[in-house]
Amino acid sequence: MKTLQVKLGELQRKAWELKIPIIIVFEGWHASGMGEDINRFILPLDPRGFDFHTMRRPCYKEELKPFLLHFWSRIPVRGRIGIFDRSWYSRAVIELFAKEKNEDALEKTLEELTYFERQLSDDGYLILKFFLHISEKEQKERFKEIKKRGIPLILEEYKDKNGKDLEFIEGYEEYLPVVERILERTDVPYAPWTIIEANDRNFAVLKIMSKVAGAIEKCIEKVTRTPGEQTIKYLDMAKEKLPALDGSVLEKVDLSKSITLEEYRESKKLFQEKIENLQYELLKRKRSTVVVFEGWDAAGKGGNIHRLVEELNPRLYRVVPVGSPNDYEKAHQYLWRFCSATPMAGHMTIFDRSWYGRVLVERVEGFSTEEEWGRAYREINEFEKILYDSGAIILKFWLHIDKETQLERFESRLTDPEKRWKITEDDWRNRNRWDDYEIAVNEMLQKTSTLGAPWIVVESNDKRYSRIKVLKTVAEAIEKELGT
Amino acid sequence: MKTLQVKLGELQRKAWELKIPIIIVFEGWHASGMGEDINRFILPLDPRGFDFHTMRRPCYKEELKPFLLHFWSRIPVRGRIGIFDRSWYSRAVIELFAKEKNEDALEKTLEELTYFERQLSDDGYLILKFFLHISEKEQKERFKEIKKRGIPLILEEYKDKNGKDLEFIEGYEEYLPVVERILERTDVPYAPWTIIEANDRNFAVLKIMSKVAGAIEKCIEKVTRTPGEQTIKYLDMAKEKLPALDGSVLEKVDLSKSITLEEYRESKKLFQEKIENLQYELLKRKRSTVVVFEGWDAAGKGGNIHRLVEELNPRLYRVVPVGSPNDYEKAHQYLWRFCSATPMAGHMTIFDRSWYGRVLVERVEGFSTEEEWGRAYREINEFEKILYDSGAIILKFWLHIDKETQLERFESRLTDPEKRWKITEDDWRNRNRWDDYEIAVNEMLQKTSTLGAPWIVVESNDKRYSRIKVLKTVAEAIEKELGT
Repeated sequence: MKTLQVKLGELQRKAWELKIPIIIVFEGWHASGMGEDINRFILPLDPRGFDFHTMRRPCYKEELKPFLLHFWSRIPVRGRIGIFDRSWYSRAVIELFAKEKNEDALEKTLEELTYFERQLSDDGYLILKFFLHISEKEQKERFKEIKKRGIPLILEEYKDKNGKDLEFIEGYEEYLPVVERILERTDVPYAPWTIIEANDRNFAVLKIMSKVAGAIEKCIEKVTRTPGEQTIKYLDMAKEKLPALDGSVLEKVDLSKSITLEEYRESKKLFQEKIENLQYELLKRKRSTVVVFEGWDAAGKGGNIHRLVEELNPRLYRVVPVGSPNDYEKAHQYLWRFCSATPMAGHMTIFDRSWYGRVLVERVEGFSTEEEWGRAYREINEFEKILYDSGAIILKFWLHIDKETQLERFESRLTDPEKRWKITEDDWRNRNRWDDYEIAVNEMLQKTSTLGAPWIVVESNDKRYSRIKVLKTVAEAIEKELGT
Repeated sequence: MKTLQVKLGELQRKAWELKIPIIIVFEGWHASGMGEDINRFILPLDPRGFDFHTMRRPCYKEELKPFLLHFWSRIPVRGRIGIFDRSWYSRAVIELFAKEKNEDALEKTLEELTYFERQLSDDGYLILKFFLHISEKEQKERFKEIKKRGIPLILEEYKDKNGKDLEFIEGYEEYLPVVERILERTDVPYAPWTIIEANDRNFAVLKIMSKVAGAIEKCIEKVTRTPGEQTIKYLDMAKEKLPALDGSVLEKVDLSKSITLEEYRESKKLFQEKIENLQYELLKRKRSTVVVFEGWDAAGKGGNIHRLVEELNPRLYRVVPVGSPNDYEKAHQYLWRFCSATPMAGHMTIFDRSWYGRVLVERVEGFSTEEEWGRAYREINEFEKILYDSGAIILKFWLHIDKETQLERFESRLTDPEKRWKITEDDWRNRNRWDDYEIAVNEMLQKTSTLGAPWIVVESNDKRYSRIKVLKTVAEAIEKELGT
C-alpha cells in the first residue's frame, strides 16, 4: 500500500509535467463504501493537482440545460486529475430511469455520453471508470449497520417531478439490469470500466490505486513515445459518415440581392416585433435558441446582431463574442469554453463567432493540426445534437460578401474616426488568405449543415437585405418550431 | 443621444486600456421599464467588454452560502463593465424584508454591503448605482397595460419559506420606507445612488448614459493624473479601529511542548472519531466550518491537514491549496478568488494557506503596496465577519517552529528521495527573510484575531503535539458551537 501511494504521488507529478489530463469516475451500489474508498485514494495525492466533484442534486438552473454540459464544464485542465464521485452515469440513471422510466431517452443519452468520452479521449484525456460492486445480501447488511450508526446513507434527498422522494436507494433488483446494460454499453477502449469487488475495503482501495497507477504509467509511456498516434484512427471513421464535398457552396450565392430602404424599414419593424413577442412564448415553452454568426470580416455581423436584439428583453438573450481562446481555455478540450455560454431553456444565446473557429481560423492559420480540425466536424455535429436533443432551436448564419465589398468597407472604416478602431492588422492578414478561408468555409458548410442545425448563407453585399433575411429566418424558424 | 452613444463607446475602450473595472447597478420599482432602459444602454457598448447579470431566484446551492459572496464572485475583471440588473440590494430586500420582515438582519446586511462596495472602491473599482423611480399611480397604470399585452411582469416566481408565492411586486406603499432607508443608508461617496425619474423613457436612458459617461470620464482623469490617491484616506480609519501592536506574540510561544507516541495514538483516534461524528451533526444543523492553515515552510501544514481529514467524508470537506494568484485572479479584487472556495452550509473547507498571503508574502516580497496590505487587515476582518454572520465556525492555525527546526527539516527532505520535490528555491528565499516574516506574522496575529475568527498559535517543533492540538481544537470548537 505504502509503495503504491508513493508511486501514485510520483505519477501525478509526472502527468502534471506532461500536461496529461485525467478523469476518474466512481460509480457503484449505495453502501458500497465509495466515500471511504475515495478518501483513501485521494489522501496520498497532492491536493494542488486534483479536483473532486461530488454529484449533487441539480439546482433549477442546471435543469434548464442538457445535464451533460454541466459535467463537460467541469473537466480538468491539462495536467490535473478530475475525480467524479458519481457522474454523468448516475445522473442519467436518476433522470431517465428513476424519474422517467424512459428507456429510449436513456439509450439516446448513453450514446451522447460516448460522444463526450470519445471527444475527450481524442483530445488526450485519460479516462478511467470504476464500478464498486457488492452483492444484494451484502448491501442489505450494510444498510442495517449504517442505520444503526445513525449516519445518513445519502447526503441529499432527490425528488421526482411531483416533489415526492425518489426511492432509488434500495431497489437493487430493479436497477441491476440497468446497471449491467450501462456497463456493457459504455465499456469502450478509450474509457473502460473496471469492476471493483468492494466487499473488502483494503482490497478495493488497492485495486483502484493499482489500476490508476498502471493506466497513468501506460499513458505517460505512450505520450512520451508517440505523440498523437492514438487519435488518428477516429478520423477515418468520421470521414465515412460525413458527406463528400460537392463543389463550392459560396460560388453559387447571388450577391446582387438587395432591397429598398422603405422595404427595409417595414420588414425590420415587422420581424423585430414578431421575435419580441415570440421570446415570451419560448420562455413559456422552455425552448432555448442558439444563433451562430460567422462570416467574412466586415460582412456586418455586429450590425446584424444589433438589429436582432434591439427590441428584445436583455434578461432573455445574451450576446457572446468569441475571440481566440486564452491559455486557460486552451488547456481544456476546445468545446469546454462554450458549455457555460449555451442558453438555459427559454433563453437565447447569440454567438458572434463560435466553435466554428476550430475549422476556420484554427485550420487556416495552423493553430490546430489537420487531425484536430479534421475530427472537429463530427465533434461539432455531436455537440449541436446534444443541444438539439434538449430542445434547442439552432440557426447558423454565414454572412457572405465578395472581396471587393470587403475592401470598400475596410477603407470606409479607416476614414471614419468613430469606426477606425474596428480595423486591425488581423483583418488585413485574414483578407490575404481569402482563398484558403473559402476552401475552409465551403467544407464547413457542407459537413456541418444538419437538419437540426442548418447553415443559412446570407447574401450580405447589401446590408439591408442581409439584416432582413436574418430577422425573417429567425422569426420563421421559431414560429415553425412553436407551431404558431 | 447619438453623440452620447459614440462617447460611451470611446470611454469604454479607454477604460479597458487603463484597466478600470466598472460596476453599474440597476434597481427600481417593478414596471419602471428597467429591462428596456438597460437594453438601450448596453446596445452601443462593445459586447466584448461587459458582463450582464440578471438577478435570479437563488438555487438551493446558493442559499447555502452568504448571498453577498454570490455577487462578489461576479465582479468584473479589471477593464470590464459589470452590469447588474437588480443586485445585492434587491436580494437583501427579498431575503430579509419580503421573506423575513427581519429589520435587524437587514440593518446588519446593509452594513456588510458597504464593506463590499468600499473594498471594491478602495481597489480601484468605479461603482454607479441607479434607482429607477416612478410614482405609485404611474406604476398601477403600467401594471394594467402590461397585463393587457400578456407579457410576464417578472420572469421568475419567488417563493417564501413555505413555498408560497411572495407578493412583493405590488406593495408600493409597504416597500417605500424600506427603499428610502436603503437609498439613504447606502448612498456613499465611493458608490453613489442616482435616482432616475423613469416616467419618460428617453429622458431616463439619456440621464443614465450621461451619468455613466461623466463618471467614467472623471475616473479616467483621476487615474491618469494621480494613481492611488483616492484610497489612502481609508487606511487611517482602519488603523484607528485595530488594536495597537503589543510586543511579539511569537516570542512567548513555548516550543518545547511535546507528547509521547502512545499519547499521540490515543488522542488522534479519539479526536478523529469525534470530528467524524460531528461532521454529520454540522450537516444537519447547516453550519459550515472554515479552517485556515498558515505557518512557516516545513512547519507541517500538509501532515496536519492529512490527519484532520483522514477519517472524514470527502463529500463534506474540501482542501483548498492556495498559491500565488494567476493573472486572471490578479485582475480582480484580491478576495474574489476565495469566494467560490468558501464552504456551503454544513460543509468544511480547509485552506492550506489563504487570503492571509496578502499580509504575509505579498507584504514581505513587496507584491502589494503598503497601502494595500495596510488596509487588508480590516478587509479580512470584514470578510470573515460575513462568513461568521452566516453561521460559519472559523478557526485559524499558525503552525510555529523555530529556525533550527526548519533547517533540520529542509535538510532531511533533501536527503529523502520521496520528499525532495517538496523543497524549492522559494523555501530558501523565504527562510532568508525570516525576520521580516516574523514582523508580519506578529502584526497579522494581533490585528486579525477576533472573537468570531480566532488565531491559534500551534507549537509545532514536535509534530505529534502539533497535530493533536489542531485536532483537539477543531473538535472542541465544533462541540462548543453545537452545544453537544
